[in-house]
Amino acid sequence: MSDLEALKKEAAVRAAALVESGMRVGLGTGSTAKYAIEELGRRIASGELKDIVGVATSEASDQLARQLGIPVEPLDPRPLDIAIDGADEIDPKLNLIKGLGGALLREKLTEVQARRFIVIADHTKTVTHLGEKAPVPVEIAKFGFLSTIERLRAMGLGGRLRQPGAQPYVTDNGNHIFDAQLPESFDPATLERQLKGTLGVVETGFFLGMAERAFVASPDEVRELTPV
Amino acid sequence: MSDLEALKKEAAVRAAALVESGMRVGLGTGSTAKYAIEELGRRIASGELKDIVGVATSEASDQLARQLGIPVEPLDPRPLDIAIDGADEIDPKLNLIKGLGGALLREKLTEVQARRFIVIADHTKTVTHLGEKAPVPVEIAKFGFLSTIERLRAMGLGGRLRQPGAQPYVTDNGNHIFDAQLPESFDPATLERQLKGTLGVVETGFFLGMAERAFVASPDEVRELTPV
Repeated sequence: MSDLEALKKEAAVRAAALVESGMRVGLGTGSTAKYAIEELGRRIASGELKDIVGVATSEASDQLARQLGIPVEPLDPRPLDIAIDGADEIDPKLNLIKGLGGALLREKLTEVQARRFIVIADHTKTVTHLGEKAPVPVEIAKFGFLSTIERLRAMGLGGRLRQPGAQPYVTDNGNHIFDAQLPESFDPATLERQLKGTLGVVETGFFLGMAERAFVASPDEVRELTPV
Repeated sequence: MSDLEALKKEAAVRAAALVESGMRVGLGTGSTAKYAIEELGRRIASGELKDIVGVATSEASDQLARQLGIPVEPLDPRPLDIAIDGADEIDPKLNLIKGLGGALLREKLTEVQARRFIVIADHTKTVTHLGEKAPVPVEIAKFGFLSTIERLRAMGLGGRLRQPGAQPYVTDNGNHIFDAQLPESFDPATLERQLKGTLGVVETGFFLGMAERAFVASPDEVRELTPV
């Protein structure tokens, strides 16, 4: 395991320790969230955790959880006790950019229902302001996606359609993703509202005011952050 | 043909007369738009219209157009010369409620690109204010749709998930539709913004400030309306 992977796992284990028997747990998506799901599976297998129900934010996490013996249910309107997920950027207020893994819509729909939303990351993910390192993924309808991208460009956003191979990336919801380069200076809440209000946009990767705390692992320590 | 069907057809024929050879034409969806597509097919077959390209707002309209010899292309960012479609409600400003046919997202994405968007309807579709007779369809992501409906209800909206049989209705984009009952008094632009801004909402059936004119057929005449 590389140093960075070891750090991700450390953060994930710290967050998974907050899960108690009987809880309904939102299961994140991506390389860091995977370690949290594995840790939950380990605690269930050891008999330490009982009667957990997972709600998965992607087909991939659904499958992994089932393999590890975590019962998975679809999202319904009941609150979740806790949700644990990674992030692509974390600012001091614990506002996030998420969605490089492509699951932003399901993650947001799930995590907004969690009484406690816990973010886990290695230290490379913390930023002073959002957009420093990462683009913000914008999920857009497949139909007319080129026109929707034109509308986003007309708002002054750079960026590109996510296209790992010959075809554009397709989310679990059947949409495409535009990875938008953020301007030098902007207000996240305003931009989030503008983006979401744009015809053809389904959801954005801004997760604002949602996270209760973050476990951020650096080579020296795992820092536990709350919004400043 | 029933009297109402005859009226729909009259309105459709009037609108189709605005289409000229060489135009790129947005093709609507539903029982009234169908007559416009048929009239375009007739004019092409008679040799009166040449070099038309259609852009279809649903799989159904795509199929009908092809059957009638209208070349169909996917939507791209180029403007359309004209688009012709029905509506569920038309107010005096030609603000519309659309989407009872289930194609609201593709219709909106297409018709926003038309230099001229022409609405066709029988006289039962005109209202003093939107929401008088029809609910406004709200397209919502399938994942977590029950939670999204809870969010809409928390905004004071009545209504119900569209479910024609044992399963909820699924749009061409893989989403569900919540048919929202509108409050007695509301500002369409404000409500449209609130709905679109709601997590899980993909698009709404409000088409505001888009229509250039409407042909509305009553038993006595076809009225040609422009926004007051």
